[in-house]
Amino acid sequence: MSRIYVVGFGPGKEEYMCRKARQVLEEADCIVGYTTYVRLIRDYFPEKEYLETPMRREVDRCRTAVEEAKKGRTIALISSGDAGIYGMAGILYEVAQEMGADVQIEVIPGITAATMAAAVLGAPLTHDFCVISLSDLLTPRELILKRIRLAAEGDFVLCIYNPRSRTRTDVFDEALAILREIKRGDTPVGIVRNAGRDGQEAVLTTLAECSGEQVDMFCTVIVGNSKTYVKEGKMLTPRGYVIREEDRMK
Amino acid sequence: MSRIYVVGFGPGKEEYMCRKARQVLEEADCIVGYTTYVRLIRDYFPEKEYLETPMRREVDRCRTAVEEAKKGRTIALISSGDAGIYGMAGILYEVAQEMGADVQIEVIPGITAATMAAAVLGAPLTHDFCVISLSDLLTPRELILKRIRLAAEGDFVLCIYNPRSRTRTDVFDEALAILREIKRGDTPVGIVRNAGRDGQEAVLTTLAECSGEQVDMFCTVIVGNSKTYVKEGKMLTPRGYVIREEDRMK
Repeated sequence: MSRIYVVGFGPGKEEYMCRKARQVLEEADCIVGYTTYVRLIRDYFPEKEYLETPMRREVDRCRTAVEEAKKGRTIALISSGDAGIYGMAGILYEVAQEMGADVQIEVIPGITAATMAAAVLGAPLTHDFCVISLSDLLTPRELILKRIRLAAEGDFVLCIYNPRSRTRTDVFDEALAILREIKRGDTPVGIVRNAGRDGQEAVLTTLAECSGEQVDMFCTVIVGNSKTYVKEGKMLTPRGYVIREEDRMK
Repeated sequence: MSRIYVVGFGPGKEEYMCRKARQVLEEADCIVGYTTYVRLIRDYFPEKEYLETPMRREVDRCRTAVEEAKKGRTIALISSGDAGIYGMAGILYEVAQEMGADVQIEVIPGITAATMAAAVLGAPLTHDFCVISLSDLLTPRELILKRIRLAAEGDFVLCIYNPRSRTRTDVFDEALAILREIKRGDTPVGIVRNAGRDGQEAVLTTLAECSGEQVDMFCTVIVGNSKTYVKEGKMLTPRGYVIREEDRMK
């Protein structure tokens, strides 16, 4: 039976990869992925065969994986973070079904940017949150901004993926403008660049102070809810445990 | 320097734990955690010293961790999934700050139930999504249901944690009622019980067919967006890649 593993290898550093992902990558006959991702893991598995495809050729990449699997080879199709969150899992299923290929697909989950960035910043995601990508390549910008507005109205913590790219420089500022209409200006905002990779950097700012100049395609941005605060350099969203405990003590 | 690692050990099975988590657990002088979580990992680290505390004693658990760390010991405070998502990271920071303890805290991220359940179901989280806990112990029920409504209005995929407990049996049905007002009855719903643990089970149903009887405290529930469909037993939320590629071919 032909088999493709869709592997989320986590943020990038090998220490954040789960054992199952490592095992699958070690056992695969061929690793298929976007060039940048191949570069991130090649040092950890130097002996493997790699098939690299450029950015935005996601469908081609999946077809390559399916064609290779049909030869009876075990294929690992890689995504950074988790393969199911804006990753390759969905499109692989679609392509395999479209090709009518008798291929067994298994998704190996990974640590996604939201949780990695949160771990770097402190504990901003301890309450209900939304994950929203600002990439408007495949999603109408109006829908993205509508979701930003509803997330703010629901007082969700927001976790923003792909806040800016080289060519898309304005959606983040549009999102900030909407958030500022609804949320307090002193709402903490955490920006993590290269979360869980070499060159990791974190910045804490506020909704009022934040600007599109501070982010790029390597950033994950977390915007707090109405209870989120910064103390001793950590961004924290309380769940109310301490207050509860103090109530008990009375 | 006293040091506490807050470790998300993932869904439960050792193969989904990241290497850093395993390393920290191996090196810790003492592992502190809720009894059920200790049971999940004890077999993997049988030689360690454990301090167990019962459910709902989160503040006590953190105080224990801080007191032990102040003795100069390295402590691992464990959560299942990711320690920052409804986990112990936030409350530990709060308790350590309240105690004025000079303790270094580091959060080690893990694979959270959302991504594990998604991997089991197919690829339902490939578009913007909300994570909402239905536990009303520390969150007013009105706020939870307001968030459910806004998430539906934004056509987010919903990932529901803690859909039901032994004593809280009605919030899930209330949430379903709201979702049915806004979303189509044939919207796919995936329920994963014991995701990434022994006894893992998955059920695919629809918003119209789903009921509170199908879920318990071990379940994670994913409700699709307007584009989500089920094909060949997999729940998929398309991002639009295939259509895009076909456009190119013309």
